[in-house]
Amino acid sequence: MNAEIIAVGTELLLGDILNTNAQYLSQKLAELGFTVHFQSVVGDNPQRLEQLATQAKQRSDIVIYSGGLGPTADDLTKETVAKVYGDPLQFDQQQFERIRGFFHACSRNMPENNRKQAMVPAFGETLDNANGTAPGALFRYGEKIAILLPGPPKEMIPMFEQQAMPRLQKLQKAVLVSRVLRVYGVGESALEGMVGHLLEGENPTAALYAKPAEVIIRITAKAATSQQAEEMCGKTAQQFYDILSDSIYAEADQTLEQTVVQVLAEKGLKVSTAESCTGGLLSQRITAIPGSSQVFECGVCSYANTIKEKLLGVPADVLEQYGAVSPQTAIAMAKGSKALSGADIAVGITGIAGPDGGTPEKPVGLVYISVANGETIWVYKLLLAHRNRETVRFAASQKALDMVRRVALGLEMKDCQCFEM
Amino acid sequence: MNAEIIAVGTELLLGDILNTNAQYLSQKLAELGFTVHFQSVVGDNPQRLEQLATQAKQRSDIVIYSGGLGPTADDLTKETVAKVYGDPLQFDQQQFERIRGFFHACSRNMPENNRKQAMVPAFGETLDNANGTAPGALFRYGEKIAILLPGPPKEMIPMFEQQAMPRLQKLQKAVLVSRVLRVYGVGESALEGMVGHLLEGENPTAALYAKPAEVIIRITAKAATSQQAEEMCGKTAQQFYDILSDSIYAEADQTLEQTVVQVLAEKGLKVSTAESCTGGLLSQRITAIPGSSQVFECGVCSYANTIKEKLLGVPADVLEQYGAVSPQTAIAMAKGSKALSGADIAVGITGIAGPDGGTPEKPVGLVYISVANGETIWVYKLLLAHRNRETVRFAASQKALDMVRRVALGLEMKDCQCFEM
Repeated sequence: MNAEIIAVGTELLLGDILNTNAQYLSQKLAELGFTVHFQSVVGDNPQRLEQLATQAKQRSDIVIYSGGLGPTADDLTKETVAKVYGDPLQFDQQQFERIRGFFHACSRNMPENNRKQAMVPAFGETLDNANGTAPGALFRYGEKIAILLPGPPKEMIPMFEQQAMPRLQKLQKAVLVSRVLRVYGVGESALEGMVGHLLEGENPTAALYAKPAEVIIRITAKAATSQQAEEMCGKTAQQFYDILSDSIYAEADQTLEQTVVQVLAEKGLKVSTAESCTGGLLSQRITAIPGSSQVFECGVCSYANTIKEKLLGVPADVLEQYGAVSPQTAIAMAKGSKALSGADIAVGITGIAGPDGGTPEKPVGLVYISVANGETIWVYKLLLAHRNRETVRFAASQKALDMVRRVALGLEMKDCQCFEM
Repeated sequence: MNAEIIAVGTELLLGDILNTNAQYLSQKLAELGFTVHFQSVVGDNPQRLEQLATQAKQRSDIVIYSGGLGPTADDLTKETVAKVYGDPLQFDQQQFERIRGFFHACSRNMPENNRKQAMVPAFGETLDNANGTAPGALFRYGEKIAILLPGPPKEMIPMFEQQAMPRLQKLQKAVLVSRVLRVYGVGESALEGMVGHLLEGENPTAALYAKPAEVIIRITAKAATSQQAEEMCGKTAQQFYDILSDSIYAEADQTLEQTVVQVLAEKGLKVSTAESCTGGLLSQRITAIPGSSQVFECGVCSYANTIKEKLLGVPADVLEQYGAVSPQTAIAMAKGSKALSGADIAVGITGIAGPDGGTPEKPVGLVYISVANGETIWVYKLLLAHRNRETVRFAASQKALDMVRRVALGLEMKDCQCFEM
């Protein structure tokens, strides 16, 4: 079955926002075994939207819309597509109460124009929105369907996964199963050299995707049953594990910070952080994970040297002799954080994120990361030339997370210097 | 004049790559004063491409293509669009030599299939490629034009700027100027109620776009000269300022954290933070800004109550009597941070980001944010029901940044309780 994706919003046509929804939906539809023939973007203009919706209904079995479900006068996707699919829409008291409840819970009155969000398909289906006011919709025309999702990815993605995906899966006969392996510490080119021969299969297929400071491997198998497809994926996954071993830190959507929180919780360990150039990015990433309060003790973001001395007890002569950006300072910060918090594992990060502050000896992109447990302290020198502030900071936090994972699991600490506490 | 953008490439339809070309071209066309009506993506399929190209030629004055100019058999954009515009294409010896030279410079022989890249428009124009083998092309049909650019941004962007832009500028008589106002503290629906009458103009136009925890207003004017267009934007902008006043925190691309760093630097003030539920997100956002080391003193991320007591001096009886999530604790955290750092302004944040930990009295989404300067301490109660952890944390950090901005500038502290230090 073929599909197409239509994003509605003038802000996309003005280039104000990047159409990440189209990429997400394309990936998901491909995983589900649908062939996407077109992606389109059209503005908040009912004539042009109707023209495109009519054409899409003719040429595609499945049309996925995103955007234009909001409360304002130019949010017209639902009204326009309903017309094309011959659905009159009807007022839904339950949705209305839910939307009003949404405002009530924030101690605000519902503006009158939010009322139109409670209009739902009369012949089609309503897709519940757990993360916003606008419900989604499904319209039918014979065997053909249109699915309408909200524009903001935070609402669109959960609605697609919880509401649209089960409905789309029912339409497919062959089963497609994917498995994603997440790799930290091996770059894409190096990875291609190591596992290139595993990327040539036709079923299962396997492909690499470079993400910020990690690479993911996606394995996809097609079979008559999901059990068969899962077994096929499993065999291929094992081949990757045989080569990459503990560089595969997790599977599926599990991020490195989720892995760290999970590993620490399983081991009953607590972590604390002392950050300079990352400015709280590491503690922010850890505490973004629900349940992190069980494993995270405290973070200090010591930008000023006086704070490094006062709060973390970094000796003044270490700062003077080696400088704030040095393995010695990183080690003292980790030690200081550990003493302060009593955590089992402590991290110290110091470096130069740029754009200014670099010297020939200590260039922008140089970061020292130290991790201490009860007996041992490791320090890693990260050097990322010609990268921007955001990239350097993210890469440093990613490396720190992997070091915490490795310390907690007792894995090899590659390329780290090692000292006794 | 209206325009549309067509990207050609099956990899886009599979979601393997993100269509950043569409955003870039949309921005550039808007700047040049063209109204983009559609963006599309079609695969390397000559039938579907021809169908779309025929339709685009009918409905749009200008069609910009990217992708499908490569040497392989499925690179068919030039051949297909040439057919639609009635151009027979012809072999160009000069382009052929240039392409062969390109391979020669890399000490490689030119593969035979690169020969097709030397076929150029017979009636249209050839656009030179300074960064790759594929030349671009321009086809005409009466007053209408199609411009074909390579897919890789490294080739597409320079060719657009050097070859396409001068040709497009000649077509435009009017100049378009945009101005963006950034609003914090007024939701999209409420904003529409306040400034709805300003959103109806035809020239300048003005529109609202909801972003995470803020709204932007884009004003766009069309005139004979950029000075006239700027003046028109200026008048409309003033009408928004008259109504929204200091809720407009900045213009253009300037984020709230950039504004805060800039305001603090201008006033010679320093800030420090004490965060519980945001876990370092606030310090991370401030320190993400280059130059923030001049205004940021230190951050403490006190997840555990013991750390709140030990590092920040939050009295044990405050924690016991009012709980960790209370205005009293937020105030004590801000005070503690100020005492620790000696900063001019200090922030304390404590709340329940969820998904667990809520009670009927203190539900998920309840956050207290406190900001202290030398004499006064303000506290704000933020209540966001039914939002996820990420949204609650981001909204809390956004509110804290706005409070710091207001304290630094001596602006009104709306809906805050106020105490003496």
